[in-house]
Amino acid sequence: MQEVSAINEFGETCLISIPAERALTVYVDKRELVTLMTLGAHPELLVLGFLRNQRLVESAQEIESITVDWDVGAAAVKTRQGISDIEARTAKKVVTTGCGQGSVFGDLMAEVDQLQLPPATLSQATLYGIVNAIRLQESTYKSAGSVHGCALFQGEQMLIFVEDVGRHNAIDTIAGWMWLQADGMRSDDKVFYTTGRLTSEMVIKSAQMGVPIVVSRSGITQMGQQVAQRLGLCTIGRAMNRRFLCYSGVHRLLLQPGLAG
Amino acid sequence: MQEVSAINEFGETCLISIPAERALTVYVDKRELVTLMTLGAHPELLVLGFLRNQRLVESAQEIESITVDWDVGAAAVKTRQGISDIEARTAKKVVTTGCGQGSVFGDLMAEVDQLQLPPATLSQATLYGIVNAIRLQESTYKSAGSVHGCALFQGEQMLIFVEDVGRHNAIDTIAGWMWLQADGMRSDDKVFYTTGRLTSEMVIKSAQMGVPIVVSRSGITQMGQQVAQRLGLCTIGRAMNRRFLCYSGVHRLLLQPGLAG
Repeated sequence: MQEVSAINEFGETCLISIPAERALTVYVDKRELVTLMTLGAHPELLVLGFLRNQRLVESAQEIESITVDWDVGAAAVKTRQGISDIEARTAKKVVTTGCGQGSVFGDLMAEVDQLQLPPATLSQATLYGIVNAIRLQESTYKSAGSVHGCALFQGEQMLIFVEDVGRHNAIDTIAGWMWLQADGMRSDDKVFYTTGRLTSEMVIKSAQMGVPIVVSRSGITQMGQQVAQRLGLCTIGRAMNRRFLCYSGVHRLLLQPGLAG
Repeated sequence: MQEVSAINEFGETCLISIPAERALTVYVDKRELVTLMTLGAHPELLVLGFLRNQRLVESAQEIESITVDWDVGAAAVKTRQGISDIEARTAKKVVTTGCGQGSVFGDLMAEVDQLQLPPATLSQATLYGIVNAIRLQESTYKSAGSVHGCALFQGEQMLIFVEDVGRHNAIDTIAGWMWLQADGMRSDDKVFYTTGRLTSEMVIKSAQMGVPIVVSRSGITQMGQQVAQRLGLCTIGRAMNRRFLCYSGVHRLLLQPGLAG
């Protein structure tokens, strides 16, 4: 966070905190891949998760090292055997709905049908516990209002909470974190939370992590809903206080309407 | 908008409207450039503004035609003389803060210092008029909560209001619209409004349109503030009811604190 002065409606000068974003250029085996704008709290996890969610690497073992140097704003990724065909695989630009113009390398949609989600359910009581845990979380989001937050839950327990200037960075960081946990970290008992909208990209990324339930305080887009339905992934949006809407995968939601009143 | 059914917290099925986004792949002289996800209300303006804001074309006259075919989700752009060096100019990926992973072709930042903004001021009374006009605007944003809205104002008069799944599409569409207006449309008496955050990309796009004042209901990011300061562009965020914060270019804001109480 950085303090800057602003003028309010009374003409008063006030100090406010704004998120201090930085540019991080990712080099894979000395080849420039992309520049990410990030708050920079977990740059190695972000880069790892980015490579994973772009499907450029298939296991964390393919990476020998990720070295971040903030002086030059660079993350140097060293792979063990190189990434085959990286030119072609990063050539296609899909401009996604998150901000309207995100960049997904390759055709993620084509791979959606190959994803198999584990059986898992969420009770309305646990959902309320998750929404409450988010409410209690002190965050840059609350104080500055210009970042997105994402979290991974196991039951009502928040395992990790990540904020970044963009929601895709936040989810990528969580993906990187999951990948670095002990082998065999279960995903079927996890729930993914995002402050951002339920776009197709968010749904696909959650599915790629093997997490079958996504909760958001925002709404859903049409493609987000279509992809989630195809995957049987449970999407729950507009989750604030006791209210919510379940848009897909309702078979995973154990309704307890008595708790809503 | 598309109607879909959802389950609410009482276990009731309800019909809700969600934004119907579509994929639009842009071909420039038969070469695939990018795929945009859009609500699709003004696809030609979106494509024109996208090409402009990416600085791939310098005047609307360079474009012979833009033909949109929704059956195949394609926009075919025909230029008069081709776009020189298009491969190299679209090679660099900058993942911006809007969604965390937007795509700006080329190095916009390097060109910031070349931008000259016209002198222009905004009174607090007019600012309140703008905020009120946005409040009265019926919108997909309000009903579905999952799109961004942008508008262009002349005084308190809303000239155009555009919504899309991403704020960059909305601003690009407005840029395209401005470009198609009669030659010499003044930009120095215009104010740009966005529901989204004041990121560096939004600030730069507004500056590229020659609009020196940007208002948002959201906050600002660090790079957004830095770029705006460098440009002398006036950024006003958190604008709701009578409240706001001016982060940069305060010399353009005619304060009337008596109106704030």
